[in-house]
Amino acid sequence: MDQSESKIEMRPIGFVSRASADEDILDRSLVSRVVLDRGWAPALDGIQDYSHVFVLYWLDKITEADRQLLRSPGDFVGILATRVPKRPNPIGLSLVELVRREENILWVKGLDAFDGAPVLDIKPYPEWVHGRPIVVTDYRVPDWLSGRASRV
Amino acid sequence: MDQSESKIEMRPIGFVSRASADEDILDRSLVSRVVLDRGWAPALDGIQDYSHVFVLYWLDKITEADRQLLRSPGDFVGILATRVPKRPNPIGLSLVELVRREENILWVKGLDAFDGAPVLDIKPYPEWVHGRPIVVTDYRVPDWLSGRASRV
Repeated sequence: MDQSESKIEMRPIGFVSRASADEDILDRSLVSRVVLDRGWAPALDGIQDYSHVFVLYWLDKITEADRQLLRSPGDFVGILATRVPKRPNPIGLSLVELVRREENILWVKGLDAFDGAPVLDIKPYPEWVHGRPIVVTDYRVPDWLSGRASRV
Repeated sequence: MDQSESKIEMRPIGFVSRASADEDILDRSLVSRVVLDRGWAPALDGIQDYSHVFVLYWLDKITEADRQLLRSPGDFVGILATRVPKRPNPIGLSLVELVRREENILWVKGLDAFDGAPVLDIKPYPEWVHGRPIVVTDYRVPDWLSGRASRV
């Protein structure tokens, strides 16, 4: 079964707004804003009771050609074994600290998205199942990871 | 700025395959398979060195009407303050244990997706920035969360 024929349509619910388009998005100490379309404001009610949320956004600078890559040039591991932005469906996933909510706007710390990036979803952290959180602290990562640049 | 005019197109890279379509997807002890289209197999090289990955998939049973909801019926908090599947862009995000990889197939434990669900992306866990993991253990969740059903 080749599912690549079927297409899935997403609609942005808002966008990322940074103090400046020149900010270093990898500086996790910076606070930026997630500005939802006003109609979605009620969908945020209660979110301020969480300290952290996931922001899912669209990496809109990724080209069609970027989406076909199997590996980054010169790399020995596949795209899906990394967090590089050039991937078949370039969805950004950032775990951020929720600083403040005001109506349709979230102030968040640590969002590594460019100014203007379309926002797809907000999810509270962590997932909570049968009265327990799903937080994994006993993970294993590859030896080759330690020699990597800041964004793998 | 209302971004809802612009549309974003995703293409599934594979699908979820469960032992039976009747399995309880909330039983996190079950192992299921993520079957990528064969062409994507090289993009997985190296992923087996991680113990856990995020699987991003599409909740394909969610209707257009479901995607307009601001709150679940009778709920006092907004959709985006919960993990309910009925949301504007119904992307499923599951943190799972990677049991085994064989070419284009991943065996994963704890995936709460239905049999046949389109898979959008695989991301290694955790995110690794400047030589350090982004894992948050000092989070705060709402008091109202404890009284909730298994899937919030």
